[in-house]
Amino acid sequence: MNSFGRIFRVSIWGESHGNSVGIVVDGVPAGIELSEQEMMADLARRKSGAVGTTPRVEADQPNIISGLFKGHTTGAPLTILFSNTNTRSGDYAKLKAQPRPSHADFTSMTKFNGWNDPRGGGHFSGRLTLGLVAAGVIAKKILNKATFQTNIVELGGSHNAEEFEEIVLSAVAAGDSVGGVIECRVDGLPVGMGEPFFDSVESVVAHALFAVPAVKGVEFGAGFECARMRGSEHNDPIINKEGVTLTNNAGGIVGGITNGNQLVVRAAIKPTASIAMEQQTYNFATNKVEPLEIGGRHDACIAMRAGVVVESAVAIALADLYLLGKK
Amino acid sequence: MNSFGRIFRVSIWGESHGNSVGIVVDGVPAGIELSEQEMMADLARRKSGAVGTTPRVEADQPNIISGLFKGHTTGAPLTILFSNTNTRSGDYAKLKAQPRPSHADFTSMTKFNGWNDPRGGGHFSGRLTLGLVAAGVIAKKILNKATFQTNIVELGGSHNAEEFEEIVLSAVAAGDSVGGVIECRVDGLPVGMGEPFFDSVESVVAHALFAVPAVKGVEFGAGFECARMRGSEHNDPIINKEGVTLTNNAGGIVGGITNGNQLVVRAAIKPTASIAMEQQTYNFATNKVEPLEIGGRHDACIAMRAGVVVESAVAIALADLYLLGKK
Amino acid sequence: MNSFGRIFRVSIWGESHGNSVGIVVDGVPAGIELSEQEMMADLARRKSGAVGTTPRVEADQPNIISGLFKGHTTGAPLTILFSNTNTRSGDYAKLKAQPRPSHADFTSMTKFNGWNDPRGGGHFSGRLTLGLVAAGVIAKKILNKATFQTNIVELGGSHNAEEFEEIVLSAVAAGDSVGGVIECRVDGLPVGMGEPFFDSVESVVAHALFAVPAVKGVEFGAGFECARMRGSEHNDPIINKEGVTLTNNAGGIVGGITNGNQLVVRAAIKPTASIAMEQQTYNFATNKVEPLEIGGRHDACIAMRAGVVVESAVAIALADLYLLGKK
Amino acid sequence: MNSFGRIFRVSIWGESHGNSVGIVVDGVPAGIELSEQEMMADLARRKSGAVGTTPRVEADQPNIISGLFKGHTTGAPLTILFSNTNTRSGDYAKLKAQPRPSHADFTSMTKFNGWNDPRGGGHFSGRLTLGLVAAGVIAKKILNKATFQTNIVELGGSHNAEEFEEIVLSAVAAGDSVGGVIECRVDGLPVGMGEPFFDSVESVVAHALFAVPAVKGVEFGAGFECARMRGSEHNDPIINKEGVTLTNNAGGIVGGITNGNQLVVRAAIKPTASIAMEQQTYNFATNKVEPLEIGGRHDACIAMRAGVVVESAVAIALADLYLLGKK
Repeated sequence: MNSFGRIFRVSIWGESHGNSVGIVVDGVPAGIELSEQEMMADLARRKSGAVGTTPRVEADQPNIISGLFKGHTTGAPLTILFSNTNTRSGDYAKLKAQPRPSHADFTSMTKFNGWNDPRGGGHFSGRLTLGLVAAGVIAKKILNKATFQTNIVELGGSHNAEEFEEIVLSAVAAGDSVGGVIECRVDGLPVGMGEPFFDSVESVVAHALFAVPAVKGVEFGAGFECARMRGSEHNDPIINKEGVTLTNNAGGIVGGITNGNQLVVRAAIKPTASIAMEQQTYNFATNKVEPLEIGGRHDACIAMRAGVVVESAVAIALADLYLLGKK
Repeated sequence: MNSFGRIFRVSIWGESHGNSVGIVVDGVPAGIELSEQEMMADLARRKSGAVGTTPRVEADQPNIISGLFKGHTTGAPLTILFSNTNTRSGDYAKLKAQPRPSHADFTSMTKFNGWNDPRGGGHFSGRLTLGLVAAGVIAKKILNKATFQTNIVELGGSHNAEEFEEIVLSAVAAGDSVGGVIECRVDGLPVGMGEPFFDSVESVVAHALFAVPAVKGVEFGAGFECARMRGSEHNDPIINKEGVTLTNNAGGIVGGITNGNQLVVRAAIKPTASIAMEQQTYNFATNKVEPLEIGGRHDACIAMRAGVVVESAVAIALADLYLLGKK
Repeated sequence: MNSFGRIFRVSIWGESHGNSVGIVVDGVPAGIELSEQEMMADLARRKSGAVGTTPRVEADQPNIISGLFKGHTTGAPLTILFSNTNTRSGDYAKLKAQPRPSHADFTSMTKFNGWNDPRGGGHFSGRLTLGLVAAGVIAKKILNKATFQTNIVELGGSHNAEEFEEIVLSAVAAGDSVGGVIECRVDGLPVGMGEPFFDSVESVVAHALFAVPAVKGVEFGAGFECARMRGSEHNDPIINKEGVTLTNNAGGIVGGITNGNQLVVRAAIKPTASIAMEQQTYNFATNKVEPLEIGGRHDACIAMRAGVVVESAVAIALADLYLLGKK
Repeated sequence: MNSFGRIFRVSIWGESHGNSVGIVVDGVPAGIELSEQEMMADLARRKSGAVGTTPRVEADQPNIISGLFKGHTTGAPLTILFSNTNTRSGDYAKLKAQPRPSHADFTSMTKFNGWNDPRGGGHFSGRLTLGLVAAGVIAKKILNKATFQTNIVELGGSHNAEEFEEIVLSAVAAGDSVGGVIECRVDGLPVGMGEPFFDSVESVVAHALFAVPAVKGVEFGAGFECARMRGSEHNDPIINKEGVTLTNNAGGIVGGITNGNQLVVRAAIKPTASIAMEQQTYNFATNKVEPLEIGGRHDACIAMRAGVVVESAVAIALADLYLLGKK
C-alpha cells in the first residue's frame, strides 16, 4: 500500500492539489546529521524549469516536522512535509466523463468508486515523488560509503545526450511527448546485501522503482540484452580476492545478493500521457468515442525530471537492505 | 526474506541436496477444491527432459501435508513438500576455493560467513521454484476467472520459435548456454487491482519475478520500447464503457492499477551460469586467475523450463493483490 | 516500529515539544463521510482539565491534510496533524544526569545513544496518543455496526466510581499519583474476526493496547480470574443459534476468533511516574543516589484521561481484523 | 495470520490429526550450532504424562528438514516437522451439531464456512505449540546471554506449589479442569530492546503470548496490581550506573524498552474447555439446549504443560526484538 520497507520504512501521503504532500521515514538510526538545506540539491534536480517541463513551479520547500533534534536524527520517525501552493484545479467533472488515455483517471475512479480526489491527478500525481526524493536524501546518508551516478541514457529513441534537448523541443512543438531510459549506477556497496528468496536486491529495488509513476520496465546489468548472449559472454569472471569481476553483466548482483561491483539498474520511463494534441477516446457521458483536448500544465518529457526520483527509489530500497543486512 | 505477500502469503524453504524443498501457503480462502494431482500438469511444464535441460530427473511429487481436508482447503495454511531423492553432491570444497562465475557461490559464502549449504547451490538452487509452481496452482484457483498464456518470445537473440531448439542444441554442442525472454499474458482480471503508492501491480509482480533465479529484467506492455515512442503512439485510447483500449501499450496497468485489459509482462532470463566449457576465474586458494571446469548436471537454457515458474510468480503476486482488493 | 496494522495501517510520529504530532492512516475504504469536527468529541474525552489532570492545555485541533475530498475518504491515506503550541521545555540536561524513575528517560537515552529528543518526553510522550484517538474515530466508522462502552472500573484499589475523585485528590494532596483499570466493551461485532495462529483477536488488540504508554496488563473476559475457576464455571454454554452464550467468561473471543458476544477487554494503567514528591534515585553526573524533584506539569492519574485512548487502540486493532476478515 | 516476527520470523502450520505439525523459522543468523537432540529437553517439558495430562502420548520427535548443514544454521530458513502418529479421530459430525462450550468449534466453523478440519481441534489444536517450542529453542540460542525461569505461580486459586497436584487430582475426580498463571522471568537482556511506538516489548511479547491457546491475560512486572499502587510505591528508583533498580515493578520494561533489569511477565491460562462432566449447550441439529458429553483424551490442567510454551513464545518475541535492535 502506501508504505515500503522493513526497517527503513517510508509511508507516503498527499494529493496534487490538496494541502500538502509528505512522507514519514521510520527506522532511521539516531545521530545522523540532517537538515532541510541538505535536501535542496536533490529537490532542485527534480524541479521543473528545464526544456519541456511543466510551467507549474512550486517552492518545493521541505519541512522536517518530527524526528530531528539539534540537527541530528533522534531514532524517532522523520516526517517531511511539502505544502502545495500553486494549485489550479481545472474542470475535473470533465475527467470523470472522458478519462485521459493512459492516465489513472479511469482506474482510480473505478477502484475507489468515484471517491478519489481527481484534482491534478490527486494521490496519483507525480508530485508525491517529492517525498521520495526527501527520503532518498536520508537513505543516501545511511549508505554513506555509496556514491550514485544517474543519467538519461536513452530519450525518444536516441542514445546521444546531445540530441536530447532537440528531441524534446520537437515533441513540444508537435504537442506530443517522449519517453526515455534512466540509468542509475551505485558504487561502494558492500558484498552481501539482499535477502533470498523473495527479497533479492533486484526484487526490492524493482518494487520501489515500479512505484514511481511512468516506470514500465526495470533491468539490471545487461538486462534484456542477456537474452541475446551466451553464458560464456554473459558470465563475469572474478579477478581478485575482493571479488571484482572482469565484466559486469550481472550489474553487481548475483544470486540476488550484491557482489561488491557497481550496481547498475535502468528504468524505462513512458512518454507523458498528458499531451497537448487532440486524442480520440471514450466519453462515458455521451457513450461514444470523441475528441479530447487536455488543458493544464504538463511535462513533455517526464524523464528529464525523473532521474533523481529513480535514484531516490533505488537509495530507499538499498538503505532498507543495508540495515536489514546488519541485523 | 523467504516470505512474500500480505494476504496470500507464501514462505519458501529448502536446499537442492537437503531433505526436501517446500512452501507454506497462508491466506488461502476455505472451500477451494484442490489435490496434488491438479499440480502435476504445471509441475510437468517445469520438468527437465527437453532439449538442453539437465539430466537430473526428480519425481517432483508434491505432498500437501496441511491445510487440506476432504479435498478442499480449510482456511489453514497449506504446506507442500517435495522430497529430494536424486542428489549427487560433488566436491563443494572446490567451489569454496574457486567460485563459479555469475553463480551465488561467492555472494552466499560471503553473506553467510561460509556457513551456507553449498551442495548443488543449496538454498539458491532453482529447485526451490518447485514450491513457487505449487503455490502458483493455488493462486490461479483463487484468480478463477483469469487465464494465463506464457511463452518464450525470444531465445538466444531470435524471435522465431521454430529456431529455438536449434539454437539450444548449438549452444550445448559448444558447451555453452543461452538466455531468453518469457512473456506472460493474463486475461480476465478485474479493473482495480493494485494498491498505490508502493504496491502498484508492476511493483508487486516485479518483486515476485525478480525472486526467480536468473531473471534480470522485467517490463510491462510496451516496456523498454516506450522509450522510443511518443505519447501519441504510446497512449491507449479507451473505446467502450468497459474500459477496453484500442492498443495495449500499458500492458493492462495504468497508474499501477489493472484497467481490465490483458496484463502483459515479460521477464529476461539470463543464460545459465554453469557452462561446460572452461572459464578463467579467480582461485581463492592459489590467489590467482585459473581455468575452471564445472562438473555436475545443468541446463543449457533455463528459459526452456522457466515459463511456468514465471507464470506462477505472476499468479502469486496477482492472487495477493486480488485478495487485498476485496477487503 | 511506528506503524501498526496489515490493512487498516497507521503510522505515528511526533514529539511532545516538537512542531506537531500526527498519524497517517492507510487502508481506509473510500467513501466514508468524515470531518475534523467529528473527531472533537473523542478528543475532548482525552483532554486534561478534570481533577488531577495536567494544567498544560492544548487546543488539540486535528487537521486532516490528506485523503479527504468533499467530506469523504478517497481511498488514499489520511494524514491528521496536531500542532504543538503550548510547550515549555524545562532543563533537560538535568534529566540526562538524573533520569526520572520508571520514565523512559534512561531507556531512550541508552537506546538512541543520547540522540533522543528529551523535551517533555519527546517521542515517548503521552501526547502522541492524540493520533491514536483520531485514527480510532476512523476505525469506529469502519466498524459501523459496533458500539463501544469504556469505563474506569478500578482506581487506586477501589471499584467504586463514586470514590474515584476523592482518591485522586488525596493523591494530588500527597504529591503522589494513582493507577487504575480501564474496561472496554464492544457490542455488535460479527462472528469470525481474528486470524489464527498468530493474529488472534487477543494478540492484535493486546499489541495495540500495550503500545499505549502506562499500560502494564491486558486481559479478556474473566482474564486472570480464570486461574481461580474450574472449567465447569468458566465454560460459556451456547444458548441459541446465533451463538449467544449464557455467560461471557471468554469476553467474546474463543480460539482467538470473535464469537458474536460482547468483546470485553481490560487494561491496567500504572500510576503516573512523574510525581511531585521527592524521590531518591541515581545521578549519573555525581555517581550517587540523590534526591530528585520533578518539575513540569503532570497528571496525577493518567487513567482519568486514558479511557478514550484505550478505546481507540481497541478500535484500531478491530478495524484491521475486520477488513482482513473481508478479504 | 500464521506468521510472526519481522526479522526472526516464524510460520506455523498443521492440524492435530493431519499428517504433521511444523514451523518454518526464517531470519536465523548463520553459524549457530543446532541439533534435534538439543530440542528434546524443552519438548519433554511440554509432554503429557504428569498428573492430569492427556493420555495421548506422541513421540514428538522433531525433524529439521532444512536450513541446517554440518550441525550449524546456514542462514536459510529452518523447517521443523513433527509427524502425527497417535491420532484417533472421533465423531466430528457431532461437534458440528453441538459445538463444545468455550472451544473453537463454533467460531472456526463459522469463520471458515464449515470447511475447517474439525478432527481433534484441527489447526486450533494445542499440538501446534510443538512448533513454538522448537522455534523457542532456536530463539534462546540467539539470546545466548539470557536465561529463562518459568513457573506456575498460581493454580486453581492457590499460590502454593505444594498444593497444585492435589488441586488437579481433585478436578480430575470431579470430571472438571482448572486454570493457572504462568510466570516467566528473563535475566541477561541488554538495555534498549523494543521499538516505540507500536513495537514496545510488551506489545510484541503479548502478541506472541496471546497466540498460545488458552491464554486470556498477560501482565508485566506489577501488572494489574499497579492499579492498587501509588506512584511513590510503583516507581523503581535507579541505584547504580548500570541502571539497576531498587524494585522491579516495571518488570524490566520502561517506555516499552528493556531497562536491563529482570523481565517479568505472567500469562493467565484458562481451565481446559474439554471437561468430562456433562454440560448443557445448544444443539444446532435439534435447535435446543441439550446435555453434551465430551469424549476423547484431554488435559485437566493445561497450565501443567504450558510453561515451556509460554517461555518459547516469550523467547520468540524477544529474539525478534533483539535482532531488530542490532540493525
